Amino acid sequence: MAPRRGIAPEALGPTITVGEILVEIMATTVGEGFLGPQPLVGPFASGAPAIFIDQVARTGGAAGIVAAVGDDDFGRLNVTRLARDGVDVSAISVIPGKPTGSAFVRYRADGSRDFVFNLVHSAAGDTAMTAEAEALIARAGHVHVMGSAFGIAGIGEILLAAVSSVKARGGSVSFDPNIRKELAGGETRKRIDEMLAVADLLLPSGEELFVASGKTDEAEAVEALLALGISEVVLKRGAQGSSHFSREAGRIDAPAYKVDEIDPTGAGDCFGATYLTCRRLGHRPDQALAYANAAGARNVTRQGPMEGVSTLAELDAFIAADADRKILA
Amino acid sequence: MAPRRGIAPEALGPTITVGEILVEIMATTVGEGFLGPQPLVGPFASGAPAIFIDQVARTGGAAGIVAAVGDDDFGRLNVTRLARDGVDVSAISVIPGKPTGSAFVRYRADGSRDFVFNLVHSAAGDTAMTAEAEALIARAGHVHVMGSAFGIAGIGEILLAAVSSVKARGGSVSFDPNIRKELAGGETRKRIDEMLAVADLLLPSGEELFVASGKTDEAEAVEALLALGISEVVLKRGAQGSSHFSREAGRIDAPAYKVDEIDPTGAGDCFGATYLTCRRLGHRPDQALAYANAAGARNVTRQGPMEGVSTLAELDAFIAADADRKILA
Repeated sequence: MAPRRGIAPEALGPTITVGEILVEIMATTVGEGFLGPQPLVGPFASGAPAIFIDQVARTGGAAGIVAAVGDDDFGRLNVTRLARDGVDVSAISVIPGKPTGSAFVRYRADGSRDFVFNLVHSAAGDTAMTAEAEALIARAGHVHVMGSAFGIAGIGEILLAAVSSVKARGGSVSFDPNIRKELAGGETRKRIDEMLAVADLLLPSGEELFVASGKTDEAEAVEALLALGISEVVLKRGAQGSSHFSREAGRIDAPAYKVDEIDPTGAGDCFGATYLTCRRLGHRPDQALAYANAAGARNVTRQGPMEGVSTLAELDAFIAADADRKILA
Repeated sequence: MAPRRGIAPEALGPTITVGEILVEIMATTVGEGFLGPQPLVGPFASGAPAIFIDQVARTGGAAGIVAAVGDDDFGRLNVTRLARDGVDVSAISVIPGKPTGSAFVRYRADGSRDFVFNLVHSAAGDTAMTAEAEALIARAGHVHVMGSAFGIAGIGEILLAAVSSVKARGGSVSFDPNIRKELAGGETRKRIDEMLAVADLLLPSGEELFVASGKTDEAEAVEALLALGISEVVLKRGAQGSSHFSREAGRIDAPAYKVDEIDPTGAGDCFGATYLTCRRLGHRPDQALAYANAAGARNVTRQGPMEGVSTLAELDAFIAADADRKILA
């Protein structure tokens, strides 16, 4: 692998990712699971890598995704949506006979969620290194790695190939470990370590910082990760805001925006995509952090994981309105 | 194969079937497809073989099914429901890691339907001849064959084995060809002919009568099928009622009940299950036909394919209420 030189500028080529595209169907009542007929709403475009890359494009960055969907309305809904928002969809394969992935989600009274997934055996499980994927990777300037994508057959290998290719051309890598502690053993631990060894930007939330670093103290965890050669560690604290850590700028905290939460799904992905893209477009870490916080906050005010993606103009308006609210309050 | 002796009485053993179990998710608005978020309702227990066997049990017949579901709420919903209604669920396998089948359904303004299916690659695709399936088949007195089930890997073979086993013990076979004309070539045609050669009861609807017989005139089609050795041909005419044809009883017509249609899915399966079970329980063809018409009509007044299944007591009440309506009208 080539040495790390920090987040590569936009001029080097588009930000790409590899991973699952799916639809989300949401229960409209709070309760336990799907053991009987109930009101639902959907299908919503979804999949953490898809949400991420859609927000990259909306922020104004060049963006592309390697993925696979079925030849059905759920696939068309996603591909049409990504293309409309400016994502390069040339490397999304349509797998005949396989359904597009789906997730049914219901919130319980305690805020936890019940899921019924069709993902591993959906079209996403047939994601492969096609000629179109190779072409997209060959012109990419940055690869975003979603840890959860390693759980789907074939996607891990494509991600590793993309990282090698982009790094060899002086591009950069971001890594969202989104892996639960209980799953971070064996092969998964190996993948995490491989990604920590190449990532220029790490985007952990909460416990993931400790899982990634192997430390239990926040400052020690950050120090260990920066010592590995990661340029920027950006910690997502949800309703408690976020923090940037780097050798150059030290620690920068940004408070969260107060919003009425409708649906938290996708907020972390929008946050990460906005931070990364602002940095690639030349914004300072503190500016990127403020935009990223606004993007996460704005996303949770909309039902549907990808319905609250934002342009920078929308984020400017959101931030200005928030300032007004604070003066009036 | 043993010679055909007509529909076997209940004493010979339970009615069984082999086929897909799935959940149905229904759009609550009329329109085209699933290209955007919209109000839905579900999951409803579904799958033509599952609806059929549930109605057999509700009619008072012994009933069992060989099938496969995922280890998820959609599978549990179906298995719990079938067991509650009295179906032997011992031969339903739970396939780890595979999702339970699903179908999204939306009605268009012209009454046609758009679907998004996950079936062939769902747990249903892993239906296999387990020890439990062998045990259920070994004690069965009748096999119902749903033509659509031949479309799923593995199910056709189990159905053929069940037919051989049951026939060898003097049991009987019913066949619902539910296969579209465009799909009735090659392998499918071969399956249809194999089933016509063993069926004691044929349950075609509309065009299926002509596809099965190769004739284009109704009387000729029926004659050709009876000449093959099928004891009873029962033609489903939907809102136009139904007709029984046999060498013994000739032609018997039964008018449909007038109802406000909420959801036609499952009506044909409830009709067939009620007719078969009434005959196995000793009812005359005209009585069985009246109950079957009532079961089909009552089913369409409920949203959800399996929500309108009926006991004979419920059908008696439905028929009595209909007579009252006619007097008052």
